[in-house]
Amino acid sequence: MIDLLEKLVILKALFEKDKWSLRELSWRTGISEERLIEVINELCESYVIQRDGEFIAIASRDNPTKIKPWGWSIRHELVVGSTQVYARGLAPWSIVIAEHQIHGYGRHKRVWESNLGGIWATAVISLPADKSPYLNIAIPLVLQRVLRSIGVKTWIKWPNDIVFEERKLGGTLIEGVAFQDSITVYVGVGVNVNNYVGIPEATSLKKIIGLTPRNRVLAPFIGYLARVAKLVIEPSKLVDEYLSNLTTLNRVVVAETTDGIVEGRAVEVDEYGSLIVSTKSGAEVKLEPWRVIRLRHLD
Amino acid sequence: MIDLLEKLVILKALFEKDKWSLRELSWRTGISEERLIEVINELCESYVIQRDGEFIAIASRDNPTKIKPWGWSIRHELVVGSTQVYARGLAPWSIVIAEHQIHGYGRHKRVWESNLGGIWATAVISLPADKSPYLNIAIPLVLQRVLRSIGVKTWIKWPNDIVFEERKLGGTLIEGVAFQDSITVYVGVGVNVNNYVGIPEATSLKKIIGLTPRNRVLAPFIGYLARVAKLVIEPSKLVDEYLSNLTTLNRVVVAETTDGIVEGRAVEVDEYGSLIVSTKSGAEVKLEPWRVIRLRHLD
Repeated sequence: MIDLLEKLVILKALFEKDKWSLRELSWRTGISEERLIEVINELCESYVIQRDGEFIAIASRDNPTKIKPWGWSIRHELVVGSTQVYARGLAPWSIVIAEHQIHGYGRHKRVWESNLGGIWATAVISLPADKSPYLNIAIPLVLQRVLRSIGVKTWIKWPNDIVFEERKLGGTLIEGVAFQDSITVYVGVGVNVNNYVGIPEATSLKKIIGLTPRNRVLAPFIGYLARVAKLVIEPSKLVDEYLSNLTTLNRVVVAETTDGIVEGRAVEVDEYGSLIVSTKSGAEVKLEPWRVIRLRHLD
Repeated sequence: MIDLLEKLVILKALFEKDKWSLRELSWRTGISEERLIEVINELCESYVIQRDGEFIAIASRDNPTKIKPWGWSIRHELVVGSTQVYARGLAPWSIVIAEHQIHGYGRHKRVWESNLGGIWATAVISLPADKSPYLNIAIPLVLQRVLRSIGVKTWIKWPNDIVFEERKLGGTLIEGVAFQDSITVYVGVGVNVNNYVGIPEATSLKKIIGLTPRNRVLAPFIGYLARVAKLVIEPSKLVDEYLSNLTTLNRVVVAETTDGIVEGRAVEVDEYGSLIVSTKSGAEVKLEPWRVIRLRHLD
């Protein structure tokens, strides 16, 4: 953990200036050149770092501060508690990206491990109140589109995770505050890009396709978000695309809900993102995303 | 250690703006208000923090960025490897102050524990080459003066430590780079102010006189440094004052030197800071500061 702090001191410098000589970086960080080389070698495991002679730089395409999407305000932080909490202080069409979250969380406040080299971000968007329910399907779909577009054969796991060969690669989180006619939505996104993933149930882009510059994912994702209001104009088309990307469909699932366990076959998802499960007794149960704490595939 | 990171995220905000509401601080750090209160309560152990209703501020007198000594350039950093290494990139009459050092070191590169709430700083000064040897006595003397002036009955422990009731309270470190006629000196200073001190051989101002605003020590210390060239004009007076503040004088000491152990009674210090030890055999041995790795008092 002293190592994390040391990495953060070096990353701070790498994100604040485009190119450093080893000597200047030593002066900036107060870390000896010998030690810098050791720590940078470790950082190269999780970041796209360019070394050209004695110069060191973080690659532009791995540096979120280099994305300048039109109409968005971007904040980049080394460490935050959670980007979801941070985003509460931001105006719509802002996005905060952190290198490390101390208290990263997912649905139902479950801990989301957010170490160096991943994408941990929250975007603030504003939508007419009647369109917001469609985000439950639109947001995971958008992330799925981005990951497929870079050649990774991912699937959506209901309601909002992205998996590759049944292992968790990323997830989305939708929290909102309603006003009279509009709703401000905090769209959280987490993607294991080059960060260390230590559990077998999860994977990373690095494990699948090798070290990946994060802006390949982040830039198109933000692009889609900007057009999300357009996307939700035709909910039925959205549902079709969502369903054709859903690994959960037609599988036997067990859901831990806020009022008990539901087991059965997943037969449909409606335009608000609710999963319809056909139980053994033949009944159809509708599972709203917010009611489901955990979902497992049994087959 | 996750706690250190969390404290650092909050300190970063506290040092960047004078006053925060709990809500704004939560937005800035991404840490929930409930958790903020918990961490700030812990920070109050090591910092002078003002809480006024729902507003939180680090006291100006505990905030090194509030010192504006004439003619000095001040850098404040949350975390560095070592301020001594960082200072190599600074011009003379600059000073760097860090809240935490990852690789803090003292004489002979011995680890110097530098956690939150202490003074860990390096000042860069420039002197005519012939004056620089006097710094060995001038610098610890200056720190001693400052600590005595705030009512703490400290002593100098040869060569460059400050002790209170035989426990280490602070230390100085002198590293230099010589040019033709001048020398650039990196004056390191470490003082246990409000930081946690976990070993019986050391103490802190907090333990002696309670939570102490750091600028009470830092500001006069920098003031003396600015006049250090003047101070070394009369080395003999300097030696007299040094000796009258030296706890080591007339005591039996054992010194671990680069070429063996020397034991005897400390009888004098010369103007270059060398300790004269009278051994059992009656010989007088001159110990230059740089030759002595460790010195212990035996009586």
